[in-house]
Amino acid sequence: MTYCVGMLLSSGMVMVSDSRTNAGMDHISTFRKMHVWEQPGERVVTLMTAGNLSISQTVVNLLKEGIADSDGTTETLLTVPSMFRAAQLVGAAVRQVHSMYGEALEAESRGFNVSLILGGQIAGRGLRLFQIYSAGNFIEATVETPFFQIGETKYGKPILDRVLNFDTPLTGGMKIGLISMDSTLRSNTSVGLPLNLVVYERDKLELTINRTIREDEPYFNTIRHLWSNALHNAYVDLPEPDWRQTALQV
Amino acid sequence: MTYCVGMLLSSGMVMVSDSRTNAGMDHISTFRKMHVWEQPGERVVTLMTAGNLSISQTVVNLLKEGIADSDGTTETLLTVPSMFRAAQLVGAAVRQVHSMYGEALEAESRGFNVSLILGGQIAGRGLRLFQIYSAGNFIEATVETPFFQIGETKYGKPILDRVLNFDTPLTGGMKIGLISMDSTLRSNTSVGLPLNLVVYERDKLELTINRTIREDEPYFNTIRHLWSNALHNAYVDLPEPDWRQTALQV
Repeated sequence: MTYCVGMLLSSGMVMVSDSRTNAGMDHISTFRKMHVWEQPGERVVTLMTAGNLSISQTVVNLLKEGIADSDGTTETLLTVPSMFRAAQLVGAAVRQVHSMYGEALEAESRGFNVSLILGGQIAGRGLRLFQIYSAGNFIEATVETPFFQIGETKYGKPILDRVLNFDTPLTGGMKIGLISMDSTLRSNTSVGLPLNLVVYERDKLELTINRTIREDEPYFNTIRHLWSNALHNAYVDLPEPDWRQTALQV
Repeated sequence: MTYCVGMLLSSGMVMVSDSRTNAGMDHISTFRKMHVWEQPGERVVTLMTAGNLSISQTVVNLLKEGIADSDGTTETLLTVPSMFRAAQLVGAAVRQVHSMYGEALEAESRGFNVSLILGGQIAGRGLRLFQIYSAGNFIEATVETPFFQIGETKYGKPILDRVLNFDTPLTGGMKIGLISMDSTLRSNTSVGLPLNLVVYERDKLELTINRTIREDEPYFNTIRHLWSNALHNAYVDLPEPDWRQTALQV
């Protein structure tokens, strides 16, 4: 399984991904699900993947090698002129992989299962965040819905629903992303460390943070510990129910 | 969708269920998923259901009408001599419904989808909590794993994983159950009010609380409001990351 969350904020973009891949409980491996194409001063493009690992790896490889356009020119995420075109290119890569393996996967009742979060900025254009589906179609994050999740999304969603909004600062986005990931790590053993964290400040055209977070990362451990304590204290501090008030009234 | 959680605690049992049923987003109804068989001083048996509503309603009706044993005697949840036998009876009802509709449901690619949580105590016997699956087989809660969830379980699981244990008092179980339900209500619109709440004190042989919680329930609204504030404050109180420390180390 996988868990990735991407946030589009007024001050920039935060992406967090785990790195656990499993094909059955006895076949667990570590694969990076965060991919970065960066030309400082010119573009930052970040892609996170969930779903069948062979599909997502092939999609990423196609995006690195380049995809031929209808007029014969080959495009990569380092050459596309806009993030909208980048999302189309990722969609085209997904459809190309589908044409290669979709039928064979269906024949084995496995289905064609991949989803991706693409975010970034190209010089002279705006910062944008997209979620791309198995059919290559995609949606874009907005001020009202500033985050996307892929993979094992549910355990980590409540904190995003409650606290995150477009005006959350980047440090807040990092905190929420790490809490959301921690909730998922605790409740699903098929999501695991190390994590990858990317933080981008709007219009900087280079990444501020691109970091692998391992077991021994002090900040992540501090966050996990304090968050766990805070939840426990919040539960303890809630008022006790008034038994008489609630007794036996159906 | 549905969300139900049942807890087996040293001091008793807490059960919470929602009441929303949907067959598509434009066909949403309210159905009680909490069923109680109570003979004060003699037995308390509580059953919560999730999955296909027609299946779970038929299972509950069979349990009320009675199921014929191999020797011809008809048993109901008011006549079974033990909770273990009660779990077997529920399993038998599930299998009976499967023999009636399983094939037809499969033919429509719907599958036979039902899961149940059964808890209670019969005079002279211990308090027990079971989860029953679509095949009629079941598992029992233990001191190490004192809760079961059915339906839309993931949003409400982190608080259970973090805070609940066998020695949590009944009022604590109520608080955790309502928080867990609130997290699910917020993140999934197909889970909805009113809720049903049952609280049983071990060896009392009658329910202490058997209550429907509606929009205007003051205690639930207080819990929701305080919990939301506490989470937000906990997030604000977390230390800010040290940007220099985390910068660009992959």
